[in-house]
Amino acid sequence: MRQNFDESADPSFGREHAPLIRQAMAAQGLDGFVIPHEDEHQNEYLPAANDRLAWATGFTGSAGAAVLLKDKAAIFVDGRYALQVRDQVDTDLFEVRDLVEGGVPAYLQAEAQAGWTIGYDPKLHSPEALEKLRGAAAKAGAALKPVTPNPLDAAWGQSRPAQPQAPVSPHPIQFSGEDSVAKRERVGQALAAQGADAALITAPASSAWLFNIRGGDVIRSPLPLSQAILNADGAARLFLDPAKVTPDLPAWLGNGVTLETPDALAAALGDLSGRRVLVDPSASSAWYFEALERAGAKVIRGADPTALPRACKNPVEIEGARQAHIRDGGALARFLCWVATEAAETLPSELDVVARLEGFREATGALKDLSFDTIAGAASNGAIVHYRPTRRLAKRLERGSLLLVDSGAQYLDGTTDVTRTVAIGTPSEEMRERFTLVLKGHLALARVRFPAGTTGSALDALARVPLWSAGLDFDHGTGHGVGSYLGVHEGPQRISKLPNTVALRPGMIVSNEPGYYKEGGYGIRIENLQVVTEPGEIVGGERPMLGFEALTLAPIDRALIVKAMLTAEELAQIDAYHARVLAVIGPSVEPAVRAWLETACAML
Amino acid sequence: MRQNFDESADPSFGREHAPLIRQAMAAQGLDGFVIPHEDEHQNEYLPAANDRLAWATGFTGSAGAAVLLKDKAAIFVDGRYALQVRDQVDTDLFEVRDLVEGGVPAYLQAEAQAGWTIGYDPKLHSPEALEKLRGAAAKAGAALKPVTPNPLDAAWGQSRPAQPQAPVSPHPIQFSGEDSVAKRERVGQALAAQGADAALITAPASSAWLFNIRGGDVIRSPLPLSQAILNADGAARLFLDPAKVTPDLPAWLGNGVTLETPDALAAALGDLSGRRVLVDPSASSAWYFEALERAGAKVIRGADPTALPRACKNPVEIEGARQAHIRDGGALARFLCWVATEAAETLPSELDVVARLEGFREATGALKDLSFDTIAGAASNGAIVHYRPTRRLAKRLERGSLLLVDSGAQYLDGTTDVTRTVAIGTPSEEMRERFTLVLKGHLALARVRFPAGTTGSALDALARVPLWSAGLDFDHGTGHGVGSYLGVHEGPQRISKLPNTVALRPGMIVSNEPGYYKEGGYGIRIENLQVVTEPGEIVGGERPMLGFEALTLAPIDRALIVKAMLTAEELAQIDAYHARVLAVIGPSVEPAVRAWLETACAML
Repeated sequence: MRQNFDESADPSFGREHAPLIRQAMAAQGLDGFVIPHEDEHQNEYLPAANDRLAWATGFTGSAGAAVLLKDKAAIFVDGRYALQVRDQVDTDLFEVRDLVEGGVPAYLQAEAQAGWTIGYDPKLHSPEALEKLRGAAAKAGAALKPVTPNPLDAAWGQSRPAQPQAPVSPHPIQFSGEDSVAKRERVGQALAAQGADAALITAPASSAWLFNIRGGDVIRSPLPLSQAILNADGAARLFLDPAKVTPDLPAWLGNGVTLETPDALAAALGDLSGRRVLVDPSASSAWYFEALERAGAKVIRGADPTALPRACKNPVEIEGARQAHIRDGGALARFLCWVATEAAETLPSELDVVARLEGFREATGALKDLSFDTIAGAASNGAIVHYRPTRRLAKRLERGSLLLVDSGAQYLDGTTDVTRTVAIGTPSEEMRERFTLVLKGHLALARVRFPAGTTGSALDALARVPLWSAGLDFDHGTGHGVGSYLGVHEGPQRISKLPNTVALRPGMIVSNEPGYYKEGGYGIRIENLQVVTEPGEIVGGERPMLGFEALTLAPIDRALIVKAMLTAEELAQIDAYHARVLAVIGPSVEPAVRAWLETACAML
Repeated sequence: MRQNFDESADPSFGREHAPLIRQAMAAQGLDGFVIPHEDEHQNEYLPAANDRLAWATGFTGSAGAAVLLKDKAAIFVDGRYALQVRDQVDTDLFEVRDLVEGGVPAYLQAEAQAGWTIGYDPKLHSPEALEKLRGAAAKAGAALKPVTPNPLDAAWGQSRPAQPQAPVSPHPIQFSGEDSVAKRERVGQALAAQGADAALITAPASSAWLFNIRGGDVIRSPLPLSQAILNADGAARLFLDPAKVTPDLPAWLGNGVTLETPDALAAALGDLSGRRVLVDPSASSAWYFEALERAGAKVIRGADPTALPRACKNPVEIEGARQAHIRDGGALARFLCWVATEAAETLPSELDVVARLEGFREATGALKDLSFDTIAGAASNGAIVHYRPTRRLAKRLERGSLLLVDSGAQYLDGTTDVTRTVAIGTPSEEMRERFTLVLKGHLALARVRFPAGTTGSALDALARVPLWSAGLDFDHGTGHGVGSYLGVHEGPQRISKLPNTVALRPGMIVSNEPGYYKEGGYGIRIENLQVVTEPGEIVGGERPMLGFEALTLAPIDRALIVKAMLTAEELAQIDAYHARVLAVIGPSVEPAVRAWLETACAML
């Protein structure tokens, strides 16, 4: 078992650890300290050693912050975590605040007193975030002070887990499709075109892509924690803990890359004196900017130059994604067959559902990791968008309700992410109608053709219009980018209500995952990954149009579809998708599963 | 006749005037001068006295710029005007460049020589535009120098038309729906909430709305050229040429508003020393910013505080818009009946079409002005998006082709803007199919329901998806805001591919005007104005949804609709719209027109 059902933190964390942090603050002469969720690498998922917010408060969500003042404290989360935070954090100690509305700056401005010194760790905040904190502190008459080591790390001390040292290995060309020399030349030329001499790259996924390497420092994502400096001529310096270097790695990196220890980074930044260095203010913490400016480098603020090339998968990566999804589709077919035939009778716990699905994926022999902890939400648990089953929270399946399963796998050739919602027993008419509305949105976003230059923000409404017309909506994005044996959440593209100026380009992989959630009732989500296709001519048309190819191959529960609500075009689309699922996945599964798949993929 | 068919400028303008401007440049020691389309008021439509770009070059489009260097010159236009500019400008004298790609800054950087002095008129450029020009000149080693009067105005001299002095009158409460005291208090409170002591308002439409006044200084839009300073307490100073003040005006403005001459503005800005003054950098030229900073005011850059309240029409304005559209709908019904019964036989010129439509609108007895010059595009002229018929360019209607008519009126109770495309004789199957695709997009954007917070950018794709799926698209925005007896183009909302962060709010009026243009063939556009409705409950739903109410009431040519391409929902929608047109407009027209309207509005 890779996924466990423990709860890694609880309200006792804040009760025990906040006093220790306050002692360390006092020793450093601080009246307050700001604790962001982000770590030195601005990662989404953190190694245990860097999960400072959880240690300080008990809160384990993927976004948030806390402020510890000497006499009070607050924790900041967004709407997704409004319930979870009250479950995990002692709200007598931490006032719960909204991360987005006002957030940390408004709190500091209102609660910090004139003359106070508020500490922050410059390695943990982006320059933009820091700017807002500075402004807020100034309005309160308080000073913001960088502290290294920060009082939380000082208080954590010996009980802090060690920094991860997972081995870093070559990611072969059969999976990456482009060697590192070519990538570095390509990105280097783009740097030169922007007038930059070099780029400082601090996102581990960027180094993983650029050097064709993979590690294991962060759960669910094969990231090698590291930093790099890439010169416009393609030469690079990679800063990586020697304990993580596997025997093949130096030869794999080749002559153009010098392998150095993380300690050498500060001095290396000094070498950039007088040079124009591109750094991404959304990916790199303020410390890097300050160090470069101290060194006399001219900092150019701009997007991580590897982000866009990394997002646009090459033909080898796209074919890898197809193969990964066929493999994953076999496991999903076995799993969905098990749910339909056995679990719907025995009504097991969500924990058994998670274990079964993991078992089917393990049985492929190719599973490197899950791409995130499986969400199996039975009945009302399905309505909690960021649910993760634990021993305390898990429910058994309920007859007459729904089971929502959102899961994914890491294979060497690709990363998967799929959600299916299935009826357990006989669903209500309301469930079927709302499922069909979600399906209509999913289908619209799957079949759309669009011209070059179109952003995900421009397409987001297609997935919502059927729900909107029924007075319904969902409170999460419609789609996120996905890496190639890398992070399951990847930018810069996004399909969302939020404005995004990055156009969808051929090779980008995005999820298509509209949903509907009835609090206390049930949850619905239908998610496929789909890859943006090259602009193609349309018969009788004038302009080539991009489109999507579905990567995910798994049946959509026909019992939940109200056929009369679909147009002829939608019916043909779902039937064609199911025919493809059966044709591609059918041959790879045993007869019993295949027989079930034939029924599941029958025409509507 | 209000609309004429003359061409107000031609290539001789540049040939005759550019040398005069160069003489004036030399006298001022300038090596170059930048000529924007915008005037001192950053208006879309210009009084003749301020149409400097046309005088200098011959180009009369609604956006553009020119640079006159001592040894060469260039004119900059966007893709919409790529053909027109070559028709109107001597391209031996002016190199044609793209306004968007590179634009003026790239030209200056490449062509200005080190040591040169490039002049600009600070009253004609926004601070953002100027910033870019400064950067470009600096890279070329040239200096940018403000010049007043500018060499173009000096050269224009006595032949320049006088500044307009149209009378400014009260706009009664029966049309405005809210008195100026209430508006000024409301906007003043918003200023205070932003930390501003006052706002400098330079957009004539903003003063027109704020003080409930209308003028006539600009063609097609009842704008009073003026400036104003609004204090957070609601008191205001209005700077208006005394020659324009009508007898009723001072009493109408009341005690809270002091009426002053435009000469007094500079000194009034000096009075703002030490105060926090909101100015909109997209609405006000750099001169205002510099004057305020010189005066020691603290400038706050932000949106014109009247823009959003002006865009959200109050119930009186909405009811006025309905009445204006019913009145306009009667004129349109008579016009469309004439086209279908008479013009389709006699095949008159586009000029006759324009005159007829204007005649029907005049006959309402309420027409104050057209809201823009009518576009009547027969056959291939319909494919030119920014076409305006002139004696030289006008075609006669052609059998077997289409006629596109985009027109609008200014009435005291509302501004209209409508496009209908009608078949003359028997249209081709391609015309009917493409018309139906445009119609499907129009219908999707007309019926959509959406939650609060949704922007026009999020909805734009709905109007394009049917075209996209056929490999087609159109190269203009889908919808613009419309004023209430004010500009026919109004922000801040917009329905467009371009990212826009302004949510659609109840009372906003927007156009819904997808199209398709076959160069050298024909043009199709279907345009209604529609007003955003209050959030309303949907039966069985959970969240109230906004939507649109169609204001425009005119039949859509049934001969151009391929019924088999419409879904049942679309058929019901178009039938319901036509039934409403007949029910509302039918009673107001004479029997012959009514009989035609009954056929035109029959069920599909």
